[in-house]
Amino acid sequence: MSGWLEELDRLAEGRAKAGLTRRLRPRPAAGSAVDLAGNDYLGLSAHPRVIEASARALSSYGLGATGSRLVRGSTEAHAELEAALAEWLGAPAALVFSSGYLANLAAVRGLAALCDVIVSDAYNHASLIDGCKMAGTKTVVAPHNSPASVASILDTHGGRAVVVTESVFSVDGDLAPLAELHEVTAARGALLLVDDAHALGLLGSEGAGGVAAAGLAGRSDVVVTATLSKSLGGAGGVIAGPAQFVRHLVDTGRTFIYDTALPPGVAAGVHEALRIARAADDRRALLAARASQAVARLGAAGFEVATPAAGVLSVLAPGPDAALAWAADCRDRGVAVGCFRPPSTPDGSSRLRLTLNAGVTDLDFARALDVIVECSP
Amino acid sequence: MSGWLEELDRLAEGRAKAGLTRRLRPRPAAGSAVDLAGNDYLGLSAHPRVIEASARALSSYGLGATGSRLVRGSTEAHAELEAALAEWLGAPAALVFSSGYLANLAAVRGLAALCDVIVSDAYNHASLIDGCKMAGTKTVVAPHNSPASVASILDTHGGRAVVVTESVFSVDGDLAPLAELHEVTAARGALLLVDDAHALGLLGSEGAGGVAAAGLAGRSDVVVTATLSKSLGGAGGVIAGPAQFVRHLVDTGRTFIYDTALPPGVAAGVHEALRIARAADDRRALLAARASQAVARLGAAGFEVATPAAGVLSVLAPGPDAALAWAADCRDRGVAVGCFRPPSTPDGSSRLRLTLNAGVTDLDFARALDVIVECSP
Ligand SMILES: Cc1ncc(COP(=O)(O)O)c(C=O)c1O
Ligand SMILES: Cc1ncc(COP(=O)(O)O)c(C=O)c1O
Repeated sequence: MSGWLEELDRLAEGRAKAGLTRRLRPRPAAGSAVDLAGNDYLGLSAHPRVIEASARALSSYGLGATGSRLVRGSTEAHAELEAALAEWLGAPAALVFSSGYLANLAAVRGLAALCDVIVSDAYNHASLIDGCKMAGTKTVVAPHNSPASVASILDTHGGRAVVVTESVFSVDGDLAPLAELHEVTAARGALLLVDDAHALGLLGSEGAGGVAAAGLAGRSDVVVTATLSKSLGGAGGVIAGPAQFVRHLVDTGRTFIYDTALPPGVAAGVHEALRIARAADDRRALLAARASQAVARLGAAGFEVATPAAGVLSVLAPGPDAALAWAADCRDRGVAVGCFRPPSTPDGSSRLRLTLNAGVTDLDFARALDVIVECSP
Repeated sequence: MSGWLEELDRLAEGRAKAGLTRRLRPRPAAGSAVDLAGNDYLGLSAHPRVIEASARALSSYGLGATGSRLVRGSTEAHAELEAALAEWLGAPAALVFSSGYLANLAAVRGLAALCDVIVSDAYNHASLIDGCKMAGTKTVVAPHNSPASVASILDTHGGRAVVVTESVFSVDGDLAPLAELHEVTAARGALLLVDDAHALGLLGSEGAGGVAAAGLAGRSDVVVTATLSKSLGGAGGVIAGPAQFVRHLVDTGRTFIYDTALPPGVAAGVHEALRIARAADDRRALLAARASQAVARLGAAGFEVATPAAGVLSVLAPGPDAALAWAADCRDRGVAVGCFRPPSTPDGSSRLRLTLNAGVTDLDFARALDVIVECSP
């Protein structure tokens, strides 16, 4: 196609003018930056027990799963992780995917195929939105965190419906009103799909997640998804719910069937992280204290920061360029923070996104907050 | 939704009646089965150097990448792997994804957004088909491996087009006529997207893949994708092509931006596998000899088996139940073979799918062929 590279150049210029160019910055293994950017909330990705469990499975199974789950890729490490996840989440069954993204595509598509309409929260993650698009089912976007709006959409559309939401939202860190949403769906015979990515390990008894915290674990009209890459410090995704739905996905889920299984070493490392996470009330308490500390410190400096529901804080910036410069200045001073600009922000604003990490020391955390304030635009 | 579990039960009964139920069979680490089912063609997943490199990165970086590539997930292990992949494939740039599935979604969507029509081979992998669906661009399915049909579709539709194909097809193991396809696309100003998943490491000089073997490496109108989970023995995916396209994906590719990066230990292990694969002409020669041996042995027993282009052989079965029983009998006798039934087969037939694996001994391979013949329906 003649001229396609020139067209890509023109598009890149447009993004540059709008301050929306992105750059990959590979970090070294011995990175000295204080991590307020990643999603390793409980600090388990580098936990010695996690690394040891993963290394053991790596050397006994080899690096890759060597095939899709139904052909050659299912190992005992996968089966054991699935059993542990189901038990932890209080669900009858759980199915592991190679990523949370692919798990969400399968969950949305699988449920939507049984429904006439999808009701999707306006701030939902890209993977949930893509799932709606792939499903091809009529999708109505509901205003963010509004059970009343969801109710009126369901009442208007009738038919069979699935309501799709995150628990803790990935960019702003706010919590969906899950119990109210479930009242709305249950009263109307609709299903509820909750992406618990940013609450798993953090909310609920033993860190069982936002769905568990809302008292909805194990309900037959609720399906939960999550990534294994955040508080569990690894990679992969999971769908937990009724055994009939999991069986349905094993037989028909395209992103399950036609995808190479998660490496066994990763499955085993995540399983060990799960064991630690269940018992990690101390780490959860530390994160709650850190959340208050951050809100107080940033508030005193004049920033309006909502108390996070779990481990994500959002700090508004004047614009994309200012956000980028702010994050760069922090980085230069040894503090890694997230910088979210459109199209990664649901409302088109730009902001710093800070995450809590139990692996960061108290001293480093306090210093990092100072740096963020000192570098502010 | 009242009754949804009953509906799932009814659907499951329908699949059972059609012989299309699937079952997960977790394998132990010390599995004694001879592997003619996985995609570890070069036998590198358990290579000591691969395991050692992966373990080293695992202990220095931790288990997970802890964030998306643009936030916290890019490590030096990712950057080095990308440089090595670009060099190997003869492409200006390469971008690593957490799976081949997500790489294909990004590649198809990214190219389709610049085009008026997608021409997709009838036997393409689910991830390519899903990419077409997600793109929302008009998609015309071309008869399998027919450059003449592709030409006439392009001539009929006009406008800007991308032609999407695999190199070695995943189910039957046959090779697309890539040079002819490129003549057709180049003459009409169309782009060519090739999924090189089952040829990477096997075809071309130093195993650089089917695109390289066809003399198309580095062309500015060709984009290549692959999974890192087959001959490289790990997990992850890659898109290789013009630097402008890779930059475009870094800025706009949803399945790149909103997905946790491949674990650093997996990236490092795959990188070591790549070094071994480039130098593995001995393993490639062994696989070619094995291919002839298999065709001869199965042919002598009355099966019509095409000589594989790389590492995949397909043996027709009378039906889904017969295929399942055949594979089960092989398994009971210690030989793992793939059993592909609808909807995993492009033509609706059922078959055994055998894969070559340089890690299998000569003795085990010969015995496995005997078992397959002895267990045939
Ligand atoms: C809310 C949410 N859902 C899904 C995902 C995707 O999970 P994964 O990174 O495992 O693909 C993410 C982030 O990565 C997320 O933040
Ligand atoms: C042709 C082809 N493309 C893409 C994929 C997907 O790659 P991955 O397993 O890394 O998601 C596969 C198989 O898994 C495949 O066979």
